[in-house]
Amino acid sequence: MISDWSLQRVESLSDGVFAVAMTLLLALEPAVPRSITDFAAHPTFGDVLQLLPHFRGVAASFFVTSAFWIGHHRLFRLLVRGDLALVWMNFLLLFGIAIEPITTNLLGGLERPMVVLYAANFVFVSAVLFGMWAYALIGRRLVEPSISTRYVRAVLFRAAIPPILFLVSIPISLYSTTIAILIWLLVFPIGFSMAQREPSAISRQS
Amino acid sequence: MISDWSLQRVESLSDGVFAVAMTLLLALEPAVPRSITDFAAHPTFGDVLQLLPHFRGVAASFFVTSAFWIGHHRLFRLLVRGDLALVWMNFLLLFGIAIEPITTNLLGGLERPMVVLYAANFVFVSAVLFGMWAYALIGRRLVEPSISTRYVRAVLFRAAIPPILFLVSIPISLYSTTIAILIWLLVFPIGFSMAQREPSAISRQS
Amino acid sequence: MISDWSLQRVESLSDGVFAVAMTLLLALEPAVPRSITDFAAHPTFGDVLQLLPHFRGVAASFFVTSAFWIGHHRLFRLLVRGDLALVWMNFLLLFGIAIEPITTNLLGGLERPMVVLYAANFVFVSAVLFGMWAYALIGRRLVEPSISTRYVRAVLFRAAIPPILFLVSIPISLYSTTIAILIWLLVFPIGFSMAQREPSAISRQS
Amino acid sequence: MISDWSLQRVESLSDGVFAVAMTLLLALEPAVPRSITDFAAHPTFGDVLQLLPHFRGVAASFFVTSAFWIGHHRLFRLLVRGDLALVWMNFLLLFGIAIEPITTNLLGGLERPMVVLYAANFVFVSAVLFGMWAYALIGRRLVEPSISTRYVRAVLFRAAIPPILFLVSIPISLYSTTIAILIWLLVFPIGFSMAQREPSAISRQS
Repeated sequence: MISDWSLQRVESLSDGVFAVAMTLLLALEPAVPRSITDFAAHPTFGDVLQLLPHFRGVAASFFVTSAFWIGHHRLFRLLVRGDLALVWMNFLLLFGIAIEPITTNLLGGLERPMVVLYAANFVFVSAVLFGMWAYALIGRRLVEPSISTRYVRAVLFRAAIPPILFLVSIPISLYSTTIAILIWLLVFPIGFSMAQREPSAISRQS
Repeated sequence: MISDWSLQRVESLSDGVFAVAMTLLLALEPAVPRSITDFAAHPTFGDVLQLLPHFRGVAASFFVTSAFWIGHHRLFRLLVRGDLALVWMNFLLLFGIAIEPITTNLLGGLERPMVVLYAANFVFVSAVLFGMWAYALIGRRLVEPSISTRYVRAVLFRAAIPPILFLVSIPISLYSTTIAILIWLLVFPIGFSMAQREPSAISRQS
Repeated sequence: MISDWSLQRVESLSDGVFAVAMTLLLALEPAVPRSITDFAAHPTFGDVLQLLPHFRGVAASFFVTSAFWIGHHRLFRLLVRGDLALVWMNFLLLFGIAIEPITTNLLGGLERPMVVLYAANFVFVSAVLFGMWAYALIGRRLVEPSISTRYVRAVLFRAAIPPILFLVSIPISLYSTTIAILIWLLVFPIGFSMAQREPSAISRQS
Repeated sequence: MISDWSLQRVESLSDGVFAVAMTLLLALEPAVPRSITDFAAHPTFGDVLQLLPHFRGVAASFFVTSAFWIGHHRLFRLLVRGDLALVWMNFLLLFGIAIEPITTNLLGGLERPMVVLYAANFVFVSAVLFGMWAYALIGRRLVEPSISTRYVRAVLFRAAIPPILFLVSIPISLYSTTIAILIWLLVFPIGFSMAQREPSAISRQS
C-alpha cells in the first residue's frame, strides 16, 4: 500500500530543522565572545578557561536534542505510512525543537523562572513525541499490523517517561534547581536502556 | 520516461530552505531577550510570562509556513517529471518563504502597514503555489495523463483559496487588522478540509 | 560500476549549503529593520515602501544563486561517478556560494569597489563550475562514454559564458557600475536558452 | 540483514549540520563589516583589500571542515549497518563541527590561547572520527566481514594521523603559533594521499 505521504520528505524536513536548531544553539549563545576583540589585547589561558562553562549549557541542550532525534528516528523507522495528523504533530514537535536555542540561552545562569521555561519546552517536545508514538501504534494505525501488543505497550511505557520526568522537574525546581537538572539528565540512561531492550520490530528498509 | 530533472533534489533544496526559514523565524525574533543578562539580576516568573506573547507571532508564521510545506509536498507527490519553468517557479516560492522571517518580525505590534506587508508576502507565496499547481496539472503537463478532470478542477479550486483570502485581507486590514488576521487563520481549516476531501490520485512511490 | 563516492551525499551537502546561503542572504541583510522598534511609534505606508529597495539586492543574489544551483544540478544529473578531485572542486564552489551573503550585503549602495568584489565572487563561482564541467566531460571522465563530442563542445561553450561575462564586468564597472550590473543580468537569458537547446544526454535515474 | 538504523537519515542529519556550520563560519565572522555603512561614505579599493585577510581564517576552517566531511563520507560509505553507539559517536562529532564557527572566530588574531583552543577543537573532532573508524572496523562490527585485515590496518593508521598532528600542535604552539598552523596544513596532503592509496573496499551502492 502506497502512502499519500512521502515519509522521506517529512524526515528530510525534520532533519533540516534539527540540524539548524542544533547548530544555532551554539551560534546564538550570546555569552560566548564572538571575536578576539571582546578580550583584552592579549587574552590569557585564563580567559580561555573562563569560556568553557559557557559551552556547558549548549552542550547539554545539544545532546538532549540528539536524544530526541534518536526517538524521532526510531518512530519513523517503524512507520509504514503517514497521514495529515501525523505530519501536523511532527510540525508541533519541530516547533518545540526550533525554540530550544532561545530557551537554552535564557537558561543561562540557572535562574529559577528560566529553569521552569526550559523544562516546559521539553515537556512539550517529549509529550508531542509520546503523542506521535501513541497515534501511530494504537490500532496499528501507521505501522505493520503484525507488531505485537507487548511491543506496543513496552514502547509507549518508555516514551511516557521523558514527559513525566520533565513535568515532575517543574515543581521540584521551585525547591531546588539542581535536583531539577539532575532529573533531566536521567533521560539519557533511560533512553539508552530503552533502546537496548526494545525488540526490533519490523523495519522499513533503509 | 526519465525526467531531465531530479525532483528529489528540488525537494531536498526546498526542504532545506523551509527548514532554515522556519528555524530562523524564531532565532531572528529581536523582541525575545537572548540572554539572561537582558533581565534584572533575578528575573521573576512575571518576566517569563511577558516573554510568551513574543512567541505568538513566530508561532503563527511557523504553522502557516508548515501549511505551505504541506501544499508543496502534495504538489510534488503528484509530479512525475519536472521542467525548467517549474524549477524557476519553485525558486520564486522559496524566495517568498525565505523573506518570511523578516516580514514576520516586522509584523510585531500589528501596525497596519506591517500587516499589509505580511499579507502581501503570503499573497505572493500562495499565488506562486497556485501557479505551480496550474502549470503542472493543466494539460497534465507534469503529472500522470490518467488524472481525471474532476480531480484537477477540485485541486485548482482549493489552491486558489489561500491567495484570494490573503489578497482580500489587505483592503480589510485598512479598516480592521484584527479581522484581517482572523481571515488568515481561515487558511488552516480550509487546508484541512482540502486535504481530507481530495481523492488520492496516482502517487509517486516514496 | 559502483563509484567509491556517493554522489547523492555530495548533492545533499551541496543543497544544504545552497539552502542556508540563500536564506541567510535575507536574514543577514543589515539594512532591513528587524523590528518594529526601529521605526517611529507608528510606521506609515511610506516607511514600508522605503523597505522595498533593500530587498532588491538580496532578491538579485537569490536568483543568481538559483541559476548556479540549476547549473550544479544539470552537471550532477549527468555524472555517473565521482572522484576526489570533483569533490574538492565542489567544496571550492560551495565556498564561493557561502560567502555570497557577505558580498551581497557589502554590495549595498553599489559603490564601485563593492561591485568589483561582488563580480569577483561570481567570477570565482562560475569559473569553478566551468572547471567541474570540463573535468567531468573531457575524456568522458565521470560521465557515460556514449555522450557525443558535439554535446560536450556545446555544453562547455555555454558554461564558459558566465565566468567571461562576470570577468568582463570588472573593468567595465570602473567606467559604469550600471553597465556592469546589466551585464550580470545577461546570465539569466543565456542560462535559459542554454537549458532549452541542450540535447538531453543520458541521465541518471531520479 | 536490515539494520535497525537508517544510515541514510544519520547521513542526512550530518550533512545538515556540516552545511549549516560551514555557512555560519562565514556569516558569524564578526570582523567582516556587514554593511557598506560600516565604511566611510565612499569605500576605496584599499578598503576592499583590507577585507580579504578576514576571509583567510574562515576559508581555512571551511576547507579543514571539508576534509572532515570527506572522512565522514568515506566511513559511512563503508558501513553496512549502524548501531546506537555509532549514532552517539556521530553526535559527538557533530558537536565538534557545530562549535567550529565559534573557535574559528576566536582564532582571529592568532593569539596563543586561541590557537590552543582551536587545535583542541580539531583534536576532539579527529579523535572522535578515529574512534568511529575503529569501532566500525574492529571485528568488522558494522562493515562487510570480507574486508581484509590489511585494509583495516591501513585505514586506522591513516585515521590516527590527524588527531596526532592536532595534538602535537598544541605544545608546539606554545613556542611558535606559526609552526603549529603549518602542522595543521599537513592534514590536507596526508588526507589526499590517504584517499589515493586506499584500496576501494566493498561499497554500499549509491
